[in-house]
Amino acid sequence: MRRRTAVSAVVTEAPTTPGLREGAFGHATALSCRECGHQVALGPFYACPECFGPLEITYDFPAVTREEIEAGPRNIWRYKALLPVPADIESSPNTEPGFTRLLRAENLGRELGITNLWVKDDSTNPTNSFKDRVVACALSAARELDAKVFACPSTGNLANAVAAAGARAGIKTVVFIPSNLEQPKQVNSAIFTENLVAVDGNYDDVNKLASEIAGEEEGWAFVNVNVRPYYAEGSKTLGYEIAEQLGWRLPDQVVIPVASGSQLTKVDKAFAELIKLGLVEDKPYRIFGAQAEGCGPVATAFKAGVDAIRPVKPDTIAKSLAIGNPADGIYVLDIARRTGGAVEEVTDEQIRAGIVQLARTEGIFTETAGGTTVAVTRKLVETGQLDPELETVVINTGHGLKTLDAVSGAVGAAATIAPTYAAFKAIGLV
Amino acid sequence: MRRRTAVSAVVTEAPTTPGLREGAFGHATALSCRECGHQVALGPFYACPECFGPLEITYDFPAVTREEIEAGPRNIWRYKALLPVPADIESSPNTEPGFTRLLRAENLGRELGITNLWVKDDSTNPTNSFKDRVVACALSAARELDAKVFACPSTGNLANAVAAAGARAGIKTVVFIPSNLEQPKQVNSAIFTENLVAVDGNYDDVNKLASEIAGEEEGWAFVNVNVRPYYAEGSKTLGYEIAEQLGWRLPDQVVIPVASGSQLTKVDKAFAELIKLGLVEDKPYRIFGAQAEGCGPVATAFKAGVDAIRPVKPDTIAKSLAIGNPADGIYVLDIARRTGGAVEEVTDEQIRAGIVQLARTEGIFTETAGGTTVAVTRKLVETGQLDPELETVVINTGHGLKTLDAVSGAVGAAATIAPTYAAFKAIGLV
Repeated sequence: MRRRTAVSAVVTEAPTTPGLREGAFGHATALSCRECGHQVALGPFYACPECFGPLEITYDFPAVTREEIEAGPRNIWRYKALLPVPADIESSPNTEPGFTRLLRAENLGRELGITNLWVKDDSTNPTNSFKDRVVACALSAARELDAKVFACPSTGNLANAVAAAGARAGIKTVVFIPSNLEQPKQVNSAIFTENLVAVDGNYDDVNKLASEIAGEEEGWAFVNVNVRPYYAEGSKTLGYEIAEQLGWRLPDQVVIPVASGSQLTKVDKAFAELIKLGLVEDKPYRIFGAQAEGCGPVATAFKAGVDAIRPVKPDTIAKSLAIGNPADGIYVLDIARRTGGAVEEVTDEQIRAGIVQLARTEGIFTETAGGTTVAVTRKLVETGQLDPELETVVINTGHGLKTLDAVSGAVGAAATIAPTYAAFKAIGLV
Repeated sequence: MRRRTAVSAVVTEAPTTPGLREGAFGHATALSCRECGHQVALGPFYACPECFGPLEITYDFPAVTREEIEAGPRNIWRYKALLPVPADIESSPNTEPGFTRLLRAENLGRELGITNLWVKDDSTNPTNSFKDRVVACALSAARELDAKVFACPSTGNLANAVAAAGARAGIKTVVFIPSNLEQPKQVNSAIFTENLVAVDGNYDDVNKLASEIAGEEEGWAFVNVNVRPYYAEGSKTLGYEIAEQLGWRLPDQVVIPVASGSQLTKVDKAFAELIKLGLVEDKPYRIFGAQAEGCGPVATAFKAGVDAIRPVKPDTIAKSLAIGNPADGIYVLDIARRTGGAVEEVTDEQIRAGIVQLARTEGIFTETAGGTTVAVTRKLVETGQLDPELETVVINTGHGLKTLDAVSGAVGAAATIAPTYAAFKAIGLV
């Protein structure tokens, strides 16, 4: 049923991608350049042959009903008709991510002064971050393209998700990380794969090496390089789930962390698709981006009112957001401005406080990216950029167990006592 | 609506528990002694006033249909009619645990020689262990009994779950741990509560102190002490979910880790209730218990063919299973023998291998308890105690990120290289 298709890095002319089975990418019809609109056939391509702009999936969606979606599985495949995956996706082993909790956050809302606040909690995904969503879509593309190796450059969350998904799918994985990565993050990938490769260099060096391998080797699917268009679509499911879990309606405001910016653009795309398909009522919504001051190139451009992003050298505890030259930064600017949102940034101290605040109010232990989003939400209210009377959703993208060091100095035991009732009474906790 | 009810440790005569609102404990009708059958009214009691045996919830269940359950929320409250919680439980803030993945485990099954194998993965619960289920039921009881403080003695998972659930519910939490507990586990509780109390002593000392406080202070709900009957019922939801996710039928065999033994007895109780309510077809099933050799008092008794459990001093890496004198051990023996199951034990080395095997085959990073269960399953097949042709479910109760040290020496990078394609080719991975 599946035949060999070369996986390569850059396409230089519109390909025909022979060898793909019928419906390999569901209702996707082509790859379209986000810059010039040029279309190429579906295949392992990510850059426009005309202008080198980013390629994105185009679909011819069927009629889809709420009831059909609700009858689907309790994971992202309930939205398979809207993703570049085949109709039989559920029969291929995968980590079955998604459909995570949308929690009403009354305690946090009270502290931030927001009347109607929700947290979308992706820390309970299979490998504890939203990356399981995008990797599941990339895995499907890798399968359909008959890739031999499933790979990525990463500093943490992505490596975990790729290694776990590959293990379950029975496909060879190779995961590249900077050699100075904290040991817990290394263990959390090495547990799943024999092929964890440490690279002497920073993340940019690792990323560059990955692109070189993608160009030289046949049959490698680098999730965030040569199958990126399929991978990125997985983030749309965050938007779909928020709408469905709110009872099939869109929130007024959403706050989303910005690394490459891909997730924010895909939540916007998801909302637009739901409106177009008649699955939710058409209504205005505002999208806000959250960055760290130590890596806030999009926030800087937003505030300056300019269209170009000036790359920065990251220096922040929010390592999963530390992309100094974000690929989708200009699209994030577009969306924030078009929807009446904003892009804001906070300090590392505010990020730490955001982590503790979310834990103490809602019982959710988030990583630094989530601390950033909570702290930015607070700042957006304080500066009048976010309307505290409107229904607001904050996205938590990952788990605090992965970035323990960020808060291990900030919290701890209230007291150490002898094992006696008298010693307990003496500390005066009650 | 709620009135003050004293929370105390031991009841000496049958109480009437005035002050409870109607339906505070759903369809629960009484607390019954597991040993002598004596009944007392519902309240903050855990030991029989006649014989000091453990008290357990008795119900008068209504007719419940599959459709009603399936129309419920995507968490344990879909089974609220079968739990000691009020009908409006969903309106009280809680962590909304449960309905975790049941994954078909073809790769692991192939390696173990089991034809039809599933993993029930509770590592994706809100605080990454099955404890969120039991704590959610204990929290409801604490609310209905108007407790002032929500507390527990713990070495890890339980403290995380109590501190998180209490934060979200807005109830004061006090969590007691041994002072020599690993720092990551301390952070993972302290992030949620200001009242983490470190106790100079081992877990038994901490537990003893907790019982003393429960006896002296009014209004404290210690989840695993004085509201234990309500707490323990939460584990039934693991059994309900397995049956529902298999399409409303029972598996032939289940392998469950044994610490106090409570979870195993509650899965058996859940299966029996589903049969009685006509929600699944009546059929035989076998229940197997998994222990570590360094703390295997139930396995020892099972193999010796005796009815009494001889307490041991735990010495194993499976710390969440390290209960040397398991309260429900004798009931575990009963169930294993009655259903044709067994209780087996494995070495720490086998536990480590079990963790790596589950990760490499299914992309699930389990803690030491899950490694124990996988390793025991292997041993049960090898020794002919488990039938490899029958449908089998293995329960994974917690997340490997909490017990990183157990495997950090066993896995790691395959190579460290310079950031060049030549250096990558030289290691010969492809």
